[in-house]
Amino acid sequence: MTTASTDFASVPQTWRRSHLLDLESLTTDELHLVLETAAQFKEATAGCARKISVLPGKTVCNLFFENSTRTRTSFSLAAKRLGAETVEFSATGSSVSKGETFIDTAKNIEAMNVDAIVIRHHTPGTPHLLAQNVHCGVINAGDGPHEHPTQGLLDILTIREHRGDLAGLTVALVGDIAHSRTARSNIWGLKKLGAHVIVCGPATLVARDWEKLGIEVAYSLDDILPRCDVLNLLRIQFERQTTRPFPSVREYALLYAMNRERISRAKKDILIMAPGPINRGVEITPEVADGPHSVILDQVTNGLAVRMAVLWLTIGNHV
Amino acid sequence: MTTASTDFASVPQTWRRSHLLDLESLTTDELHLVLETAAQFKEATAGCARKISVLPGKTVCNLFFENSTRTRTSFSLAAKRLGAETVEFSATGSSVSKGETFIDTAKNIEAMNVDAIVIRHHTPGTPHLLAQNVHCGVINAGDGPHEHPTQGLLDILTIREHRGDLAGLTVALVGDIAHSRTARSNIWGLKKLGAHVIVCGPATLVARDWEKLGIEVAYSLDDILPRCDVLNLLRIQFERQTTRPFPSVREYALLYAMNRERISRAKKDILIMAPGPINRGVEITPEVADGPHSVILDQVTNGLAVRMAVLWLTIGNHV
Amino acid sequence: MTTASTDFASVPQTWRRSHLLDLESLTTDELHLVLETAAQFKEATAGCARKISVLPGKTVCNLFFENSTRTRTSFSLAAKRLGAETVEFSATGSSVSKGETFIDTAKNIEAMNVDAIVIRHHTPGTPHLLAQNVHCGVINAGDGPHEHPTQGLLDILTIREHRGDLAGLTVALVGDIAHSRTARSNIWGLKKLGAHVIVCGPATLVARDWEKLGIEVAYSLDDILPRCDVLNLLRIQFERQTTRPFPSVREYALLYAMNRERISRAKKDILIMAPGPINRGVEITPEVADGPHSVILDQVTNGLAVRMAVLWLTIGNHV
Repeated sequence: MTTASTDFASVPQTWRRSHLLDLESLTTDELHLVLETAAQFKEATAGCARKISVLPGKTVCNLFFENSTRTRTSFSLAAKRLGAETVEFSATGSSVSKGETFIDTAKNIEAMNVDAIVIRHHTPGTPHLLAQNVHCGVINAGDGPHEHPTQGLLDILTIREHRGDLAGLTVALVGDIAHSRTARSNIWGLKKLGAHVIVCGPATLVARDWEKLGIEVAYSLDDILPRCDVLNLLRIQFERQTTRPFPSVREYALLYAMNRERISRAKKDILIMAPGPINRGVEITPEVADGPHSVILDQVTNGLAVRMAVLWLTIGNHV
Repeated sequence: MTTASTDFASVPQTWRRSHLLDLESLTTDELHLVLETAAQFKEATAGCARKISVLPGKTVCNLFFENSTRTRTSFSLAAKRLGAETVEFSATGSSVSKGETFIDTAKNIEAMNVDAIVIRHHTPGTPHLLAQNVHCGVINAGDGPHEHPTQGLLDILTIREHRGDLAGLTVALVGDIAHSRTARSNIWGLKKLGAHVIVCGPATLVARDWEKLGIEVAYSLDDILPRCDVLNLLRIQFERQTTRPFPSVREYALLYAMNRERISRAKKDILIMAPGPINRGVEITPEVADGPHSVILDQVTNGLAVRMAVLWLTIGNHV
Repeated sequence: MTTASTDFASVPQTWRRSHLLDLESLTTDELHLVLETAAQFKEATAGCARKISVLPGKTVCNLFFENSTRTRTSFSLAAKRLGAETVEFSATGSSVSKGETFIDTAKNIEAMNVDAIVIRHHTPGTPHLLAQNVHCGVINAGDGPHEHPTQGLLDILTIREHRGDLAGLTVALVGDIAHSRTARSNIWGLKKLGAHVIVCGPATLVARDWEKLGIEVAYSLDDILPRCDVLNLLRIQFERQTTRPFPSVREYALLYAMNRERISRAKKDILIMAPGPINRGVEITPEVADGPHSVILDQVTNGLAVRMAVLWLTIGNHV
């Protein structure tokens, strides 16, 4: 990396978006640019100097309609380390409960000269609707089961760090695909970069229809395991499920949990990822979570770098 | 505006208050000074440079005993953009629930070398009591139905921006006057600046007694509409009412909501204001809220400027 | 104090700890060093310049599993005044409620390049367990009834300010000793500095066993009162008690409350302390709380200085 590329003097002219709503609509070039920028931010903040004040005087607002600590904190820290001010808005106790519409709440936030709104909402498409109604930047931090683009980016950045080019790699997303915005963002991003994607889980959580996206659908982890370069173990999102998709947690773990025995049958250099929070004993056993294949904490660290990159790219040129 | 007036080097000697408790006790000169200072902060922060670090090392504490997101956020952002640190105290989970008195809580906050306490409390007069017991600055962010001085100031600043001198303008406050601290602060401020003030709403919410303040009392919006330069549409504060003051929301909207038809009978340049959060379909219809007469979002932006001005004036010279 | 000692250029080489878990394991030299450093921070921030940016780019996380406003705020302000970023994590709404283990939560926080975790937890030993599992600094902000080292330090700093050397002073801790982490931290710190410590309260809250720590156990405040240089009046922690340890609050106040009459029988220069929040009329009457012997608010101010010192000492050299 040259000095020129890391001074963050101005957002590259090839980046023209003031929002990050999903990975589906990003071009492959844009995807590469975000990842490269994130890698540069990571390198630039690896030492003592964790702060790079490229967004002085800017304000970033977290507008979260669903509980979140880690994503919210990650965005907030990313903004602060870029020298921006942060504002926290939550649905609880806010004007929303006084009958204000969602768009009015957002316009009020924007009117306080906020430069970017980071939004998490249970309804798919909310960030897209917001982007049509405000002039400030909009970053999707998760819209229901639809997309969670910065999670997809940080997962991909983590693979890229360990494997370089993603083309030709086989990446399996395991678990609750039906309710997972992380799965959708990963699928779009991984496919654009040439990876082979498998979604794997119980038939109640993995529809055959996913094949239409040009990915492989599997119901047996043991069948696909020997071919996988990366496993991304999704949480069973009990809080999003209205029916019981499998007989018991024990049954699920028996078929889909990564444990020592399965590691022994996997590729020697397999990467084990999980978006967290992990349920030890459900989708992953402690030996694997804390073992040499796990890059789970790298994902968290990369989340910061990705969010710094996304915030800078979208509002770094905002006047 | 000259350079000299916008460098914010020191608080004008004509300002001698270390608290802002209400608009009732401000002199007209003081009122002009706050408004002019707010206008200067707005201009100085209109471009990219939103931060003016005139309060470095100072700390501002939000001490809110009532839920609030927008006022709290506005004060917090104002403080941060002045370079101050902010501290958030809320009644929930705080020492107040362990039996500590309100004054002891405040004295503890002050003992952490806090320079200003921004207080919202359901009891009228709480900020005044606090000011007698602490040495730091006290800013009233709403004391029950009594006053909400920064809301009054931002409303007036918004009118001033669009109309210049307020003398001779007719401003109507419409709706729930009885429970509205915004109404009270507006009345004191507007009268000092020479405006003619009308309070208008159902008889259950607008007592004839208000005439004693030297303002006009009206029960029919349609009667006064042709004379009004500004309408300030107050929220029906369902949360403050213990009785049903009108038969139905539909009935209220029929008589008092600003809609397209009423706009057609108003002055061509009428300003439509609302302190927010607005209830679309109750006191205002969407066409009006989003229409050319609405300055509702200007109010939000001006709230920041007013709070920057008030914080700087009250604690800018604090040692 | 010389200029050299207050420039905070680098952490003294005699300090080698990256955690502050308790006062029990501190050496007397270490204790003196923290106190001296805190005194220097207090002096250096006494004027307008409250900010000493010796932790630029560092991040401090408050990880609180028990409600707290004042301790949390004190740590947060201390960090901000040192130029560090702060992150707030609370158990409510966080990943802990999604089934994540405590250690995983902490490791995730650390993976965001956090330099210190300030932890409060209801289980004794939690900070010690955490320190064994993360590489960042760990500060104990209260672990159940075990220790609350910064509270002990601020209490001692307050005595030191008013009396200088603590050797030979008689300090009585009065009230709910059984449930008090403040008592334990005070006992360890005070004994290391040569003070004579008395614990005093109802037999249901003060076991005879405390004598094994080399301190005096008393059940009558009136008996020990004439000998005391300092009284530290602990809160009756109703929220930690599962049984009724005394017949009534009135009975407790009759025997243990500091009031005007007891002051008249105490040493002329007795210091009255209380960790707060105080219950006026229970352990202390208003005349005493607001009287000339009370240094209760000094304790709060000193809390800031102590926390600045502790944060700087533990992570000031962290790379």
